[in-house]
Amino acid sequence: MRATATALPDFHAVIPAGGVGSRLWPLSRAEAPKFLHDLTGSGHTLLRDTWNRVLPLTGSDGIMVVTGRAHRAAVEAQLPELTDANIVLESEPKDSSAAIGLAAAILVRRNPEVVIGSFAADHVIGDAVAFRHAVSEAVAVAREGYVTTIGMTPTEPSVGFGYICCGEPLAIEGAPHAQLVTRFVEKPDLATATEYVASGEYLWNGGMFIARADRLLEELAQSQPELHTGLVRIAAAWDTPVRSQVVDAVWPGLLKIAIDYSVAEPAAAGGRLAVVRGTFPWDDVGDFSSLAKLLSNGRVGDLAILGEGARVLADSSSGVVVSRTSRLISLIGVQDIVVVDTSDALLVTTRENAQRVKSVVDAIKQSGRDDLL
Amino acid sequence: MRATATALPDFHAVIPAGGVGSRLWPLSRAEAPKFLHDLTGSGHTLLRDTWNRVLPLTGSDGIMVVTGRAHRAAVEAQLPELTDANIVLESEPKDSSAAIGLAAAILVRRNPEVVIGSFAADHVIGDAVAFRHAVSEAVAVAREGYVTTIGMTPTEPSVGFGYICCGEPLAIEGAPHAQLVTRFVEKPDLATATEYVASGEYLWNGGMFIARADRLLEELAQSQPELHTGLVRIAAAWDTPVRSQVVDAVWPGLLKIAIDYSVAEPAAAGGRLAVVRGTFPWDDVGDFSSLAKLLSNGRVGDLAILGEGARVLADSSSGVVVSRTSRLISLIGVQDIVVVDTSDALLVTTRENAQRVKSVVDAIKQSGRDDLL
Repeated sequence: MRATATALPDFHAVIPAGGVGSRLWPLSRAEAPKFLHDLTGSGHTLLRDTWNRVLPLTGSDGIMVVTGRAHRAAVEAQLPELTDANIVLESEPKDSSAAIGLAAAILVRRNPEVVIGSFAADHVIGDAVAFRHAVSEAVAVAREGYVTTIGMTPTEPSVGFGYICCGEPLAIEGAPHAQLVTRFVEKPDLATATEYVASGEYLWNGGMFIARADRLLEELAQSQPELHTGLVRIAAAWDTPVRSQVVDAVWPGLLKIAIDYSVAEPAAAGGRLAVVRGTFPWDDVGDFSSLAKLLSNGRVGDLAILGEGARVLADSSSGVVVSRTSRLISLIGVQDIVVVDTSDALLVTTRENAQRVKSVVDAIKQSGRDDLL
Repeated sequence: MRATATALPDFHAVIPAGGVGSRLWPLSRAEAPKFLHDLTGSGHTLLRDTWNRVLPLTGSDGIMVVTGRAHRAAVEAQLPELTDANIVLESEPKDSSAAIGLAAAILVRRNPEVVIGSFAADHVIGDAVAFRHAVSEAVAVAREGYVTTIGMTPTEPSVGFGYICCGEPLAIEGAPHAQLVTRFVEKPDLATATEYVASGEYLWNGGMFIARADRLLEELAQSQPELHTGLVRIAAAWDTPVRSQVVDAVWPGLLKIAIDYSVAEPAAAGGRLAVVRGTFPWDDVGDFSSLAKLLSNGRVGDLAILGEGARVLADSSSGVVVSRTSRLISLIGVQDIVVVDTSDALLVTTRENAQRVKSVVDAIKQSGRDDLL
């Protein structure tokens, strides 16, 4: 059952909708994490944008969302087409290996030939057509047994991403841009990242993994056998009356580990990781400085404003203002400023200090003011 | 009728409670001007602090307040001891010559020997005992016929004050520190102010004028005869049934002019202005940079916080935060910042730009959002 003619057969998207986005506090909150916000002024949340972007490749029955129990209502409000068969609720966060691995284990039982593609719920992608071209190539590569990523051209030596070293082109029909990956390094240190970017041989991992579900599970079985066993146990019970019983028994004990470590690094080491270079604009909007850059299309010296009906009076100021109240916000002579105005918390910092926002969140945690998180 | 033993006979204080304090927006507002705020964390408004400071010299029957009709209730709430005989309500602001001149004209009819002392409602003075010593000296000088000011040692070449050039000591009993003023220059340009401060011969005018009421009115009669005539007409009707009739007829047509121009400059030119040097800490808290300095006792690099129950989480930040809401205010890595958080308006600027706050107020006026003023 595919909704559109261009849908890819046996392809199922998975959207892990998990991380809070602490560096975007007080906009992102436990109750309203990053993926539930409109960070581009598109009028849609990032989650809905993600859904819309992948929809032509899958139809609405072909997208599974993995999210926390607390966010079920908000996710369903954003995605009224989402069916019960396609929602996986986590009782507690267990990182991406468990989230994507469980989706793979459930989906492979329903369709042994399934290729899954996981797409973060909180990234911003600028050219949906180019995105779908890249995914289509990656699916073709995945059908040949490769775990496949979509690589983005790095613009700076960020230490927040995985780095992909590109090797030989792969001669796969329908995937003219696919290359073998000779090395995958998750979050290197700054010196290493600088070297990688300077070499021109590395791409950033854009957080998208496309693979046959059975292949992805094989990688997990090899690198993290206990985690794999747990996920397979849950999946076996998933479409049965004992689902919640098994979930409650198994899920809490699962290892928390990012899929970059459990799947991408070992697959690369074994010559089983491929990459398709993405040519579309991509941003993970990791902090308010990224948000400022995104909203101002990279123009330095601009003041970017996010917020429906935001009322900002600015004089000789640059940076970004996020308004979630109806208050008038006046700025005079402040450069590269970050102002985030919400009903119960206000943040004032600079773009340079944007990465330090997480420390405020940590301080609030320690102070016991969980209502502000 | 004097409340305390140390009260000065025939002395009556006048507190003009007028200016909004635009440079302290959005803290100071038309509805809640500067004098109705606690800017020191004393727990009292500046108006109440002014009253308390002068009270031992006058008793509560000896203080007259001149304020706008709109502020009557707020003023009376702050000063429950204030009697009807001592409140002068302005239908519209007419600057200090009219405000103080009318008080003088009313009071001289009640007591021809009265010496009045006018004290701004929105200044901060640190040592009330030293203040009262200076005022006592000034009253002694005023009894000899001088218009008398209290001069403050300048700390910088501010262009916002009047400058007093000190001449010969005056040999007046009870006023060992009194000097003749050879020149009074209201708000000079920066070059002139710099020269004055460097010379060491000038004091700032602290905005306090002490004079026999009849002498002050003589100065006004000479420099601004029409204004003087209008004030005398109103005063003649003041304690009669036709007060409001005469006020309505005369007040709107009165000239708006600061008493510094109408009285202090001409009195100085005529050798009729005297000064007593004040040795107490004094601040007119003209903008948020002054407020920051005041609250941090001049320590640079500190973060000053004003607001009962203010919740501020600051990391490597300096400047001043004024909190009028219960919101958490987080600052990261912002130096010399000014953050003023009120329920309907937020200001973010720097101490360096503090004087430009008035431009925001002007912009709001032009936008027609009078509710925010």
